[in-house]
Amino acid sequence: MNYNIVPLNELINQFSRLPGVGKKTAQRLAFSILEQPNEFAKQFANALIDAREKIHFCKTCQALTDLEVCQICDNPQRDHSVVCVVEDPKDVMAIERTREYNGVYHVLHGVISPLDGVTPDKLKIKELMARLSSGEINELIMATNPTVEGEATASYISRLVKPMGIKVTRLAYGIPVGGDLEYADEFTLARSLEGRNEI
Amino acid sequence: MNYNIVPLNELINQFSRLPGVGKKTAQRLAFSILEQPNEFAKQFANALIDAREKIHFCKTCQALTDLEVCQICDNPQRDHSVVCVVEDPKDVMAIERTREYNGVYHVLHGVISPLDGVTPDKLKIKELMARLSSGEINELIMATNPTVEGEATASYISRLVKPMGIKVTRLAYGIPVGGDLEYADEFTLARSLEGRNEI
Repeated sequence: MNYNIVPLNELINQFSRLPGVGKKTAQRLAFSILEQPNEFAKQFANALIDAREKIHFCKTCQALTDLEVCQICDNPQRDHSVVCVVEDPKDVMAIERTREYNGVYHVLHGVISPLDGVTPDKLKIKELMARLSSGEINELIMATNPTVEGEATASYISRLVKPMGIKVTRLAYGIPVGGDLEYADEFTLARSLEGRNEI
Repeated sequence: MNYNIVPLNELINQFSRLPGVGKKTAQRLAFSILEQPNEFAKQFANALIDAREKIHFCKTCQALTDLEVCQICDNPQRDHSVVCVVEDPKDVMAIERTREYNGVYHVLHGVISPLDGVTPDKLKIKELMARLSSGEINELIMATNPTVEGEATASYISRLVKPMGIKVTRLAYGIPVGGDLEYADEFTLARSLEGRNEI
């Protein structure tokens, strides 16, 4: 093809490197940049560089932050004796959106998955153990995902931590609020029956 | 919420300004940037700025190009006596992908749509008329989209151009290749019957 706009192709390539963005979507997005004022591309470019350069892991809880210690770890009004252990920084945000949790977090950055080469030493478990050794933490809430790997990771950490006399809890399983029993899978329904509460 | 990462929110906002990208997708894309090496964000940022700054309209055909005159208008091997009139720069690329067309293009950058305030003077029709006045052009292929506005624009231009003795043609309507008669709408099928060819 002799019609080839190099900077446009380069932009399409960059967009198509994003997860879930195929060739067609990348084209559509790249064209939309050309249709916007110059200012938009500049702001976008700055936001990309800023986010990548300024955001790193909180040195205490390993969540994302642009500060040295994240706003949650740094907040004296939060209960620092309860630590919620999650797989991913996005999970911190999901739990924060509930506005129901007032403890702090610890982000593992993955789950144990020997098939994918993820052994416990590749996760932020050392950092968690170091925090626990301070003696200020009474409860660990295991909030890894309800998958095989998430469960395995939760029980691995629980085995490490229980001898230290720290209470370890796990998020409740059950039917999702607003869900429909008819469409719930049998495992969820079974767990939901098991964990039934008196009303 | 007291957990607020300013550079991350800014990046999410920028992504969610793209067409078809909602809040959830924007979050997913922003996080994917953080998971990539620094280099990726830089390359992406450069591609954005480069594309926006270097790409403009070809001064002849109004298609996108990073040169003064696009590679198609600049190619002496193409037939400059046939001009294909399209709505959008993306249409040029679509027709080029067929590898069947050897003429040149003219991009209108829209279609006449009085309800949206798009009157003929807002399109690149003046520029088209200026090209036609050179006398080198024998045929205009109207390749606007098969919509009400596309049709209206095609017949508007055709009325302007026919008195100049230039042949005006329209893309053939019919069933799409690989399509299924059962699912073709009645208008397409009717046009397909009308335009039937001997085999």
